[in-house]
Amino acid sequence: MAFGRQLVSAQRSWSIITWRAASTTFKAADLQIELNKHPKEKPAVSSLVFGKTFTDHMLTIEWSNEKGWSKPQIKPFQNLSLHPASSALHYSVELYEGMKAYKGEDNQVRLFRPMMNMERMHRTALRACLPSFDKAEFLECLRRLIDIDRDWVPKSNTASLYIRPTFIGTEPSLGVTKSNHALLYVIICPVGPYFPSGGFNPVSLLADPKYVRAWMGGVGNYKLGGNYGPTIAVQYEASQLGCQQVLWLYGDNHEVTEAGTINFFMFWNNEQGEKELITPPLSGLILAGVTRQSLLDLARQWGEFKVSESTITMGDLIKGLQENRVKEVFGVGTACVVCPVSRILYNQKSYDIPTMENGPDIAKRFLKELTDIQYGRTNSEWAYLV
Amino acid sequence: MAFGRQLVSAQRSWSIITWRAASTTFKAADLQIELNKHPKEKPAVSSLVFGKTFTDHMLTIEWSNEKGWSKPQIKPFQNLSLHPASSALHYSVELYEGMKAYKGEDNQVRLFRPMMNMERMHRTALRACLPSFDKAEFLECLRRLIDIDRDWVPKSNTASLYIRPTFIGTEPSLGVTKSNHALLYVIICPVGPYFPSGGFNPVSLLADPKYVRAWMGGVGNYKLGGNYGPTIAVQYEASQLGCQQVLWLYGDNHEVTEAGTINFFMFWNNEQGEKELITPPLSGLILAGVTRQSLLDLARQWGEFKVSESTITMGDLIKGLQENRVKEVFGVGTACVVCPVSRILYNQKSYDIPTMENGPDIAKRFLKELTDIQYGRTNSEWAYLV
Repeated sequence: MAFGRQLVSAQRSWSIITWRAASTTFKAADLQIELNKHPKEKPAVSSLVFGKTFTDHMLTIEWSNEKGWSKPQIKPFQNLSLHPASSALHYSVELYEGMKAYKGEDNQVRLFRPMMNMERMHRTALRACLPSFDKAEFLECLRRLIDIDRDWVPKSNTASLYIRPTFIGTEPSLGVTKSNHALLYVIICPVGPYFPSGGFNPVSLLADPKYVRAWMGGVGNYKLGGNYGPTIAVQYEASQLGCQQVLWLYGDNHEVTEAGTINFFMFWNNEQGEKELITPPLSGLILAGVTRQSLLDLARQWGEFKVSESTITMGDLIKGLQENRVKEVFGVGTACVVCPVSRILYNQKSYDIPTMENGPDIAKRFLKELTDIQYGRTNSEWAYLV
Repeated sequence: MAFGRQLVSAQRSWSIITWRAASTTFKAADLQIELNKHPKEKPAVSSLVFGKTFTDHMLTIEWSNEKGWSKPQIKPFQNLSLHPASSALHYSVELYEGMKAYKGEDNQVRLFRPMMNMERMHRTALRACLPSFDKAEFLECLRRLIDIDRDWVPKSNTASLYIRPTFIGTEPSLGVTKSNHALLYVIICPVGPYFPSGGFNPVSLLADPKYVRAWMGGVGNYKLGGNYGPTIAVQYEASQLGCQQVLWLYGDNHEVTEAGTINFFMFWNNEQGEKELITPPLSGLILAGVTRQSLLDLARQWGEFKVSESTITMGDLIKGLQENRVKEVFGVGTACVVCPVSRILYNQKSYDIPTMENGPDIAKRFLKELTDIQYGRTNSEWAYLV
């Protein structure tokens, strides 16, 4: 009897140890590296189209509920072999990040506030019921990948290396349930200037309240794949109407939320006569952009005008335009940094925005301060050396 | 000069012909079939877990903007080789259908109203900016696949073959734009009885207004992958609270929309004292279920009580319960056919539903009439022979 009990007890401890042995994170120190024996020729920066040319290597890290995280691998860029029932392909168990690496005059390669992307990705992973990981270890794996493909980072004041961390459910069965298998991977691609002219080309936006991107109680504040696919048809409609992007509205009072995949900013004199930089709040409807946060941080450091995260309705915007109080409207994001808006098409009416007529002084100042940090012309703790 | 003009004209016609040559649909007559030389052993029906066991073959049909549809292929079940930037993996350019094939006592294999799934899939494809196809040709390809794997259809009154048509964007680049490459495929798997006991097990639902599945102006009425991933975490919370499914609410008045991935029905005496079968309307918030439509069609044929597609709020439901007017609540869908509901957890309060105490007469009658058609015990134009 006593022996029997001991055996049971020993088995129990053993199974607890087994359970614990399933890795709760991967470690950059375990990286397995297989270099590409057939590196591709690097394209001219002027020929680059966003997101079409990938480098020689990729980072992949597998996870299973049974074994936990496997060792991270850097290997030649290649297709993924996926079970056709994979949960990413049926139920959109998938999420991503967008980041950039910049090569400065000093030949150093820098990331911009990368831990903010790691934190947002981790938050999104938990919402998708995908496993947790150590954010610093992931950043170090990603840094190693960029280091290996360092020669792919364009040396140009306007080009950069776009980084796409991606996390997908690879559960090979059709139940709508937590994935027991997942794949975290990173692909990277050199990208040219957002504005081919090198200048600042303003865009026009379609604001049609019949399309709603995100809603309270939903997942619009997470970078989940499912938030993006449905926007493609609306973006297509916008381009048919001569607009470059969609301005997403919400609610009966037509709150402004995001423009395309970028955050919305306005610089104006508000109804109280104060100079104000205003952007919609993080209420669950919009993505917490890294560039958005950086603009808010910079503007608060400057301390020259009011900085607000508050609701902006189309009514507020139109009234401001009619009273000549709106100075600059622009979108901000990793891809364009700052993108001026010159026109909004709303309820079949076209509203001109005097952004370019006003410099745009504020938008250009943000662009300069941010790119000075990104390309290492200004020292900042926001820059992270690769 | 005249010659030069002719040349231009000839070139123009040629390019129009090239453009037209890109197939606007695939044809079942072009099917290329490679049989699996290593067929698997078929599992016992009793051991089947939903969506985990796949048959020996799959159907794949590739599309590109340049070449149009390629020839459909039936080939051994195998992994997909996908570019890591595929739009399905980043922006959820993906959609699916759920259908079943049933083997009757007469050994015939039948589908149930399959053209309704083809139509819904086609509608969803256009919303996802994926290409059009001929629905009848697709159904015939799918029929051929099932015919080849006919021995995998369980001969059982309660088991069936689950069919998963899937359509994904395979665009190998990161712009959020229309996919120029896509893959339509079908995988199939034998599935056991939904209720392992063979009986009718009632479920309890968590109705928490803080989670919203779909919204007006969104895509909740399309079978897009992105509608399902975000529900997994909520379903998990429901199971932690002792509920089997989520009842999705919408709006300030807490409208009932769907339960889990099934449509919601109630049979009650309404406030006017009429017997009424009621289900939420197709307002854009819910999926237009094939089983939902079939229940409405059957009940209207019966002509024994009022049949309504109207909004039901939690207030309506609770008042009905308090006044003993609610007789049966059930969900309906391809997987379970009819699933009785015995309890709803709402605002931290548990509401008992007397569905089982009332037979449930109506739910059981629907189940019998539908399964009689599906297994060929009753003749119906809703059955489609494979």
